[in-house]
Amino acid sequence: MRDLSGGLQWLSLNWATVREKWDLRQAIEGCARHAIPGIAPWREPLQAMGLAEAARLIRDHGLTVTGLCRAGMFPAADAAGRQAAIDEVRRAIDEAAAVAAQCLVILAGGMPAGSKDLAGARVQARDGIAAVLPHARAAGLPLAIEPLHPMYAADRCCISTLAQANDLCADLDPAGEGGLGVAIDVYHVFWDPDLEREIARAGAAGRILAFHVCDWLVPTKDLLLDRGMMGDGVIDLPRIRGLVEAAGYAGLIEVEIFSRDWWARDPDEVLEIIAERYRTLV
Amino acid sequence: MRDLSGGLQWLSLNWATVREKWDLRQAIEGCARHAIPGIAPWREPLQAMGLAEAARLIRDHGLTVTGLCRAGMFPAADAAGRQAAIDEVRRAIDEAAAVAAQCLVILAGGMPAGSKDLAGARVQARDGIAAVLPHARAAGLPLAIEPLHPMYAADRCCISTLAQANDLCADLDPAGEGGLGVAIDVYHVFWDPDLEREIARAGAAGRILAFHVCDWLVPTKDLLLDRGMMGDGVIDLPRIRGLVEAAGYAGLIEVEIFSRDWWARDPDEVLEIIAERYRTLV
Repeated sequence: MRDLSGGLQWLSLNWATVREKWDLRQAIEGCARHAIPGIAPWREPLQAMGLAEAARLIRDHGLTVTGLCRAGMFPAADAAGRQAAIDEVRRAIDEAAAVAAQCLVILAGGMPAGSKDLAGARVQARDGIAAVLPHARAAGLPLAIEPLHPMYAADRCCISTLAQANDLCADLDPAGEGGLGVAIDVYHVFWDPDLEREIARAGAAGRILAFHVCDWLVPTKDLLLDRGMMGDGVIDLPRIRGLVEAAGYAGLIEVEIFSRDWWARDPDEVLEIIAERYRTLV
Repeated sequence: MRDLSGGLQWLSLNWATVREKWDLRQAIEGCARHAIPGIAPWREPLQAMGLAEAARLIRDHGLTVTGLCRAGMFPAADAAGRQAAIDEVRRAIDEAAAVAAQCLVILAGGMPAGSKDLAGARVQARDGIAAVLPHARAAGLPLAIEPLHPMYAADRCCISTLAQANDLCADLDPAGEGGLGVAIDVYHVFWDPDLEREIARAGAAGRILAFHVCDWLVPTKDLLLDRGMMGDGVIDLPRIRGLVEAAGYAGLIEVEIFSRDWWARDPDEVLEIIAERYRTLV
């Protein structure tokens, strides 16, 4: 397992962690100021800043883009909606390529409004990923399927387990041609009794494209906006990081915290705390 | 699949659905008044009423007790805590037997305070169930392991999937001697990609001891107290009921709704709505 105590060389900041107070330019400059070598932008602030300008600033500061968040949301009520989702993901792939992201985070999407057909949504998500995979391969921009916690299965992401994501990769890329993998976020998967097996499986196939950390608070006051800072919750972060690294992952560790509490604080202070927790508790 | 439209003969009310306005006596009398033939008490109101008096009233009204909620919470920080939990479950088994409950709902428990060892909690839950199983068999009172939604894995129930519950049953009752099974609550399992397989597996082993319904609201505003009335959410209830019945379940359908919104309403009105939804949407 890597020793994180000596510096921040494998740390990356997901922009959403500071999204209420910093735009993407401020986040890029903040990372540089705090010696955080990686960043993961979201599409909206990236578009607002402009792709070329963002790419230039990221390059000038020598940052690694650990991923672009996010695209997918494939299930839709009709064929036109499904096609629009696919077209949108293709644009996201191009944006990710423009900033040399290591992957595009794929959020499968939930059930269309009014639908109760979760199995059907899963088929639509599979078909959507299949439809965009050639474009991702052509762009040299891998798609990272991120399973989201089952509490988001209905409305955000019908891919709820790492096993599902691995199954999808095996289904859509049986020969291991690449361009497809998984993003593992401890928040979404720590509860999973099959986690050890599925991390090993993803690693053996060379498919761990991103690793995200935060923490699960007890109690959790909100399904969406109450994630914890690493160390403030109940996730055994070193254990999961150990599994991921034992499975071959050698990339950056991305901090993604959706939290009203942390959003309310001074982002420079947040980055200092992140760096400290990263060195001592991740 | 059973036709529910003609009457309420397979409906049961979990007391928690009306817990803010009715004690157990009022709930028993309410069920009788609404021609609901089943009830599932909780331990606290049952103790408050007195076992003998509750048993008498339930019997006088001809109600079926579809389960006693609930006991377990096995993981603890030390051996004394674990023993105390086991002793408490044994008392709950006796209480369940005193009211002729069809099962005792087993809630595994989460991690002890300060612990991040979810795998360890799972071992403790397994060992706790193993320790109480002989008492349950002697009392003729089956234990229904209820997997809870993964969002409760940390602090309430480390058994998060029906597969885990089925595995535990197979582990602790390999010869199918009985006394051990599962409670399937749509709220906790509807997201599970393995649901169909695991319901069939539980049914084939004769281990579906209880079936609970409510609904998953979008959005869900609270992790604990925002369950929906059947039909108000996104769970395909007839599909899951069909799976459960195809797997051999012929018991009552228990309505368990934890909801500040429904608790605030007149329980008689709530029971009317439950009956209507049961006949038309479950």
